[in-house]
Amino acid sequence: MGSSKRLAEDFQSYQQRIEAVLKEVVGSNPLTFYDVLRYHMGWQDEQGRPCHREAGKFIRPLLCLLSCQAVGGDAMRIMPAAAALELIHNFSLIHDDIQDVSSQRHHRATVWKIWGESQAINAGDAMFALAFSALFKLRYNGIDEQKVVTAAQLLNKACLELCEGQYLDIAYQSRLDVTMKDYLDMIAKKTAALIAASTAIGACLATDDNKVVDSLYGFGKELGMAYQIQDDVLGIWGKEEEIGKPVKEDISRRKKTLPVVYTFENCEDSDRKKLEALYSQEVISNDDVAMVVEILDCSGARKHGEKLIGRYHRQALAKLGMSSLDLSRQTSLEEMASFLLERDY
Amino acid sequence: MGSSKRLAEDFQSYQQRIEAVLKEVVGSNPLTFYDVLRYHMGWQDEQGRPCHREAGKFIRPLLCLLSCQAVGGDAMRIMPAAAALELIHNFSLIHDDIQDVSSQRHHRATVWKIWGESQAINAGDAMFALAFSALFKLRYNGIDEQKVVTAAQLLNKACLELCEGQYLDIAYQSRLDVTMKDYLDMIAKKTAALIAASTAIGACLATDDNKVVDSLYGFGKELGMAYQIQDDVLGIWGKEEEIGKPVKEDISRRKKTLPVVYTFENCEDSDRKKLEALYSQEVISNDDVAMVVEILDCSGARKHGEKLIGRYHRQALAKLGMSSLDLSRQTSLEEMASFLLERDY
Repeated sequence: MGSSKRLAEDFQSYQQRIEAVLKEVVGSNPLTFYDVLRYHMGWQDEQGRPCHREAGKFIRPLLCLLSCQAVGGDAMRIMPAAAALELIHNFSLIHDDIQDVSSQRHHRATVWKIWGESQAINAGDAMFALAFSALFKLRYNGIDEQKVVTAAQLLNKACLELCEGQYLDIAYQSRLDVTMKDYLDMIAKKTAALIAASTAIGACLATDDNKVVDSLYGFGKELGMAYQIQDDVLGIWGKEEEIGKPVKEDISRRKKTLPVVYTFENCEDSDRKKLEALYSQEVISNDDVAMVVEILDCSGARKHGEKLIGRYHRQALAKLGMSSLDLSRQTSLEEMASFLLERDY
Repeated sequence: MGSSKRLAEDFQSYQQRIEAVLKEVVGSNPLTFYDVLRYHMGWQDEQGRPCHREAGKFIRPLLCLLSCQAVGGDAMRIMPAAAALELIHNFSLIHDDIQDVSSQRHHRATVWKIWGESQAINAGDAMFALAFSALFKLRYNGIDEQKVVTAAQLLNKACLELCEGQYLDIAYQSRLDVTMKDYLDMIAKKTAALIAASTAIGACLATDDNKVVDSLYGFGKELGMAYQIQDDVLGIWGKEEEIGKPVKEDISRRKKTLPVVYTFENCEDSDRKKLEALYSQEVISNDDVAMVVEILDCSGARKHGEKLIGRYHRQALAKLGMSSLDLSRQTSLEEMASFLLERDY
């Protein structure tokens, strides 16, 4: 059996188990409020009727479980931590959608679009709390309380960075002087911090060796950088079916994504002037979006993005290599990284 | 020295210590984002210049510290837990103000009013995460990790209830059939849960006796009920200077507060019809608010509210009595309860 087939099968059984733990935590609470959360998770439709959309990819939980396994731990015992990571991710999605005024996610109406902003704020807050409810269940799986607190601290630190990154992302929307350094700082917090927490938590629950935990944290961090840059590139040049939301929405919202920041820094003066004029508007209309894309197409931003993805991917593998784990143990994490970074453009 | 003077002095030294821990946690982080949080806490003005508004009353932290002390614990060691409770309270205030479209709190503009809704959502989220950052510091004060997880679970459960209560509060706004039972269920979650967590956390960090922790939880829960009912009564008949926001704002927002719910259930048919017509509007105008108040004035709601406050106050003391603590140890909590429930009408 080839390793990628084996990997896919590991994934599937893990994904089912993660989903089961998530359902346990978000629960069968009869309070209508939980219908909002179950809708967001894709288990119910707007009217509260059971439905089935394709399950999430559970990237963060999978990275957590594979890291635990790589270090020699028992992935099944740390399922509550895996679920917690997915819930934190979803808390941030619910609030993101309000902040970005996004009406669609995974081809469905977003929570605020159906229940209004106030209840969507609430739903995100509850998802945040539920993440910790999940994490603390580790103690009932025989995980030492000292480890539980350490994992909770890692998760919480990532949440705080996530808020900081989100703050920058929003603040950048009305700025024209965002540098590549600003951009990298923002995505390190907004995206890479939680992915780094995923691999670090998986590792820390299975070993006391801080060097190993740090290496896996580093692996997750670099991988997270590559992942976000890829997301930014797909946001301009990807296929709408794949990303589940309108392509180029990033542009109409003046998001300072990789292609935009790169182009601002590297294009001809005449193009920069055009871009500045376009980005000085509150909202960028469809016609203007097309003009922006034309400029991005010519700036070499796409090629540069792909180069950066490759660089962060290599850096991730280098960090993993520093873990001193047996090479055989590193394989599934290496495969997972390739899997994540091989999306179609 | 009289006990109330002693109490006030205890409070003052505790309040200063709580503020110091809060400042440590919210920190001197140079990221502009933290200016938003420091503004909300009252330490900075809108431009980031240091300012001093009257410090918060720190009701929840004080209840936590006094509970710890009552059980024989060392209040100074559990300061991080006290700070965490205040931060959770403030996370909920920041999000509440967005949800309620409130432009003023403590006579200052609210966070969303200055930085917009998106950044206010973010600021609330960060405050949530910072609460856990604070709580986990308990481990560096020599508190056993098992206790830290238990305290974190209590805090987190209260956060979830808070979200549920907030959900109901918002859902009730557009309903005309909210019963007293619905109302009590809502305030138990929205307000009493966090106050109960405050007393329970203080106790659990100082004793392994679950019976004592449960009694103190019960004390906090009943006290929280009385406190919210008092807040509802003050919201109609209180003085604006004291409550820090416009009196009767609850009415214009169609909030189903105690006086309103009581009146709907107990007034004459003709008044109920008038009320129904008034509350069927999206927003209640100033003239209409005056008409609502006239009906509330005549329904006996104020007297009933005061009766309920007294009842919950007595129930709180009864729960405290079940703790089997020495009577002398119960005194400061009894005094704190009286202090909280003796606001001017």
